[in-house]
Amino acid sequence: MLAEIITIGDEILIGQIVDTNSAFISKELNKIGVKVYQITSVQDDREHILQAFEDAKKHADLIIVTGGLGPTKDDITKRTFCDYFEDTLVEDSEIVENIKRLFNNYQLGEPLPSNIQQALVPSKAKVLMNYYGTAPGMWMEKDKTVFVSLPGVPYEMKNLLKDQVLPLVIERFNRPFIYHKTLLTYGMGESAVADRIADWENNLPENIRLAYLPSLGKVRLRLSSSGADENALKESIDSRMEVLSNMLSDIAIGFEDETTIVGKIAHILNEKQRTLSLAESCTGGTIASQITAEPGASSFFLGSIIPYKTELKTKVLGVPASLIEEYSVVSVEVAESMALNSCRLFDTDYAIATTGIAGPTKGDGADEVGTVCIAIASGNEVFSEKFNFGNDRYRVITKAANKSFEMLLKEISKN
Amino acid sequence: MLAEIITIGDEILIGQIVDTNSAFISKELNKIGVKVYQITSVQDDREHILQAFEDAKKHADLIIVTGGLGPTKDDITKRTFCDYFEDTLVEDSEIVENIKRLFNNYQLGEPLPSNIQQALVPSKAKVLMNYYGTAPGMWMEKDKTVFVSLPGVPYEMKNLLKDQVLPLVIERFNRPFIYHKTLLTYGMGESAVADRIADWENNLPENIRLAYLPSLGKVRLRLSSSGADENALKESIDSRMEVLSNMLSDIAIGFEDETTIVGKIAHILNEKQRTLSLAESCTGGTIASQITAEPGASSFFLGSIIPYKTELKTKVLGVPASLIEEYSVVSVEVAESMALNSCRLFDTDYAIATTGIAGPTKGDGADEVGTVCIAIASGNEVFSEKFNFGNDRYRVITKAANKSFEMLLKEISKN
Repeated sequence: MLAEIITIGDEILIGQIVDTNSAFISKELNKIGVKVYQITSVQDDREHILQAFEDAKKHADLIIVTGGLGPTKDDITKRTFCDYFEDTLVEDSEIVENIKRLFNNYQLGEPLPSNIQQALVPSKAKVLMNYYGTAPGMWMEKDKTVFVSLPGVPYEMKNLLKDQVLPLVIERFNRPFIYHKTLLTYGMGESAVADRIADWENNLPENIRLAYLPSLGKVRLRLSSSGADENALKESIDSRMEVLSNMLSDIAIGFEDETTIVGKIAHILNEKQRTLSLAESCTGGTIASQITAEPGASSFFLGSIIPYKTELKTKVLGVPASLIEEYSVVSVEVAESMALNSCRLFDTDYAIATTGIAGPTKGDGADEVGTVCIAIASGNEVFSEKFNFGNDRYRVITKAANKSFEMLLKEISKN
Repeated sequence: MLAEIITIGDEILIGQIVDTNSAFISKELNKIGVKVYQITSVQDDREHILQAFEDAKKHADLIIVTGGLGPTKDDITKRTFCDYFEDTLVEDSEIVENIKRLFNNYQLGEPLPSNIQQALVPSKAKVLMNYYGTAPGMWMEKDKTVFVSLPGVPYEMKNLLKDQVLPLVIERFNRPFIYHKTLLTYGMGESAVADRIADWENNLPENIRLAYLPSLGKVRLRLSSSGADENALKESIDSRMEVLSNMLSDIAIGFEDETTIVGKIAHILNEKQRTLSLAESCTGGTIASQITAEPGASSFFLGSIIPYKTELKTKVLGVPASLIEEYSVVSVEVAESMALNSCRLFDTDYAIATTGIAGPTKGDGADEVGTVCIAIASGNEVFSEKFNFGNDRYRVITKAANKSFEMLLKEISKN
């Protein structure tokens, strides 16, 4: 069966927000065997939305619409649903109660009339109660095509989708089984990976598709297939991924959805009961924020210092000023001293240190923009490497963070 | 004139990547007066792409296609362009040279045959040379509709769009003037803001649209209009925004595109020649990474400490252990001590400190998940507040960071 996603909102079409909802919805639908045929972003405009409904209905059994709800959106989606389904809006007393409850819980005082107005829904709609916000979801059907409307606020949309929409979709539709498995690799370019696995790739059967997803120091390799027999499908893809993973054992870090590079690092450190600290200069908190984004980070991550100003590398972290003077602040020598001192200061088994020039202007040293030195300390041992990651600030920081994780993972994976 | 964007790639439709390219393209087109009618994401499939071309051509004068290029993508976009324009692929010697140059620059050895194959382009295409990658852009026309193909790698796409596509679009099309202005506000909900400015909103002329964009502690208010007279348009929106900004002076921090909250903080601190440090516990580097993402952050941001483990708040930052014992690690007292000690350690004028439970599991204290204490130190003075930001880790961290910036901005804005 096929689904389409329609996102409503001028803010998407003028580039003010990035549509992250569609990716989330697509991923969740895929997990239950629903293939997304197309994603379409349209304006807050009745005619345009109606046209999108008609177009989507040509292919899709299920159409998920997000956005265009809420007091300040003039509820364009609900009014257009009424037109499309020849229906009228009626007040739903349960939604009124839900709105009052939310206002009470968050101590927002009495709901305004514009808030209560959100309890109006098309009379034929099955209401999907939104416990996280005031705009309800709706489920309506026309000629066997199901239309679902969800609020555009990601948090509310996600909860409604998982708690209410997916179970209803599972109940309502027969679905094949769709299976993806994605191998994460770090440290080798797309073409070089492709070249290395060319024979393996050429021997893939017709019904299994391989995709390469390169980005800033990593390449993801995805195998996809769909069919009726779940076990045969999994077996077929898993066994091929096993072979691939062995072929790329020097650059593969694991499977997406099962792990991230931070997840893998966390797993190894926890298993070995080892700890980590950071001394991030040019990456300025990016490595720490990626580590602490993962629940349970506190089991192995003890702390970090960001000595952004050169002198603080000496004052707070204890890097000898003479070292900085001799080798410059962006040097493998300084990176190594930072990493070793981070281990000592935080009393950790391992430390990552970064120092470099993210740009666009040059820093305190003589080095080119994009120069980054990364050091990994393991107790009293330390190693380091010097890189140039180009001249775009965001890319320099992201590549430096990815490379740091790659280097640390190699180190902690040793026996 | 109208444009449409078509993004090609199964990875978007299975939710493996978020389509950030479309937002970037939309924003850039808007700046030069091109309105984006629709964004459509389609599969790596010839028939589907051809259908999307036909549909888009009904409305659009300009169709920008991203993705579906590259050695491992089987160059589906180029082959479909050949079908659509009844053309054949020919090798372009300039592209061959460019590919060889790139391989040489990045020390990648000799290009593989699959790399050189990227120099094949439809014979009728105007080539848009990609100096940042091996897949070229293309410009083709059919019945006065322009089709542009760009690689899907964001960095390459952005450079090609800005350097080559936009100047050609400006030359080729007559465009009206489109003007948006967006006010950033922090610390008040969408409905409360709407209620407060209802009279002002009701008096907006028909041709000016107001949009509300709420997200995790901030609400953006956008006015949009288009027309032939650039000056009249700007004058009309700017004057209304001036009024709005004054009405919301307690929550407004400035205009998007002119500033971000970090940009505003940077501006004030630089102007006053003041410095900032951080002591981030529960936000784990998120505040620092947002500050250091901005070029020139080193002019006011000296450093940060992340004492993620409770004992490090004492050992590295000097928070009295007795204070933690008496009030718990998540307390305004500890937050205040962290902020004051951060000022001392880094010798800065201001410091932000955060301590809390981001969840999903409870931390070292007795507090509920979502509890966050934020303190702002200004020399020897300090103030703090305790919040609950809910039970979703990402949202807790993001809201805590946004609230920290809001509190700091208020403090540094004082005379």
